[in-house]
Amino acid sequence: MTAKNSKATDQAQIRQIMDNCAEAVRSKDVDGIMSHYATDIVVFDLAPPLQYRGADECRKNWEAWFPTFRGPIGYELHGLEIAASKDLAFCHSFNRITGTRTDDEKTDVWVRATVCCRKLDGQWKIVHEHQSVPFYMDGSYRAAVDLKP
Amino acid sequence: MTAKNSKATDQAQIRQIMDNCAEAVRSKDVDGIMSHYATDIVVFDLAPPLQYRGADECRKNWEAWFPTFRGPIGYELHGLEIAASKDLAFCHSFNRITGTRTDDEKTDVWVRATVCCRKLDGQWKIVHEHQSVPFYMDGSYRAAVDLKP
Repeated sequence: MTAKNSKATDQAQIRQIMDNCAEAVRSKDVDGIMSHYATDIVVFDLAPPLQYRGADECRKNWEAWFPTFRGPIGYELHGLEIAASKDLAFCHSFNRITGTRTDDEKTDVWVRATVCCRKLDGQWKIVHEHQSVPFYMDGSYRAAVDLKP
Repeated sequence: MTAKNSKATDQAQIRQIMDNCAEAVRSKDVDGIMSHYATDIVVFDLAPPLQYRGADECRKNWEAWFPTFRGPIGYELHGLEIAASKDLAFCHSFNRITGTRTDDEKTDVWVRATVCCRKLDGQWKIVHEHQSVPFYMDGSYRAAVDLKP
């Protein structure tokens, strides 16, 4: 395989993982997400704390978050841009999260996502994930959950 | 140079760039920061909008932000973890920003930073940067600017 073909293959594999993870979020499939996580993953998530370290902490976070939605979760990736080379890759996208919470609140928010991967034993695994919304620096410190790309 | 030595060199170079950028922030040196940015950099910043695309937009953002501080800015990187391989690298850290704003407000906030780099013409350049604080999902949607790692 040429270097160029190899890069295209790596990018396609990363895209597949992102698609798989999005589908797993939509169907609240914790195991599906975890199958793509490295054991030493570090996650900077939307809500506190500042970080989750390791797959076990991340699993508990997903297990706690999914039941806050009534029924399925809408989760769409937009504008995914991928860089992959040898055994490292990173990508970023805008992810739209929609759904109804158990307290009847409607969620419809666009978040920025950066995902970093490493090829371990021939398999791409997510080693770092950073999801956020910006916040208004107008004194309110309110998260800008109203923005659209 | 062996592959192992090359990786150590790459990691040292990324660390140097992060140190240089931090020093440039402290001394409000826009050119110093820009010298490490790829022309097609995509930045997810602390404040809206959702993204800045391209070095020109980023330069304007720094030029607007620096004058909001009276005197120098405190900017320290903590817990920097770097992955580098061939022509891609990524790293993450907790960055403490301190200082006094021109409206006399004191800033002392810890932010999560993810920085992705690509080696272009033999030089590491930052192609993507994501800085954020999480926000409280308690109905206040307030940015969690009070957290410490």
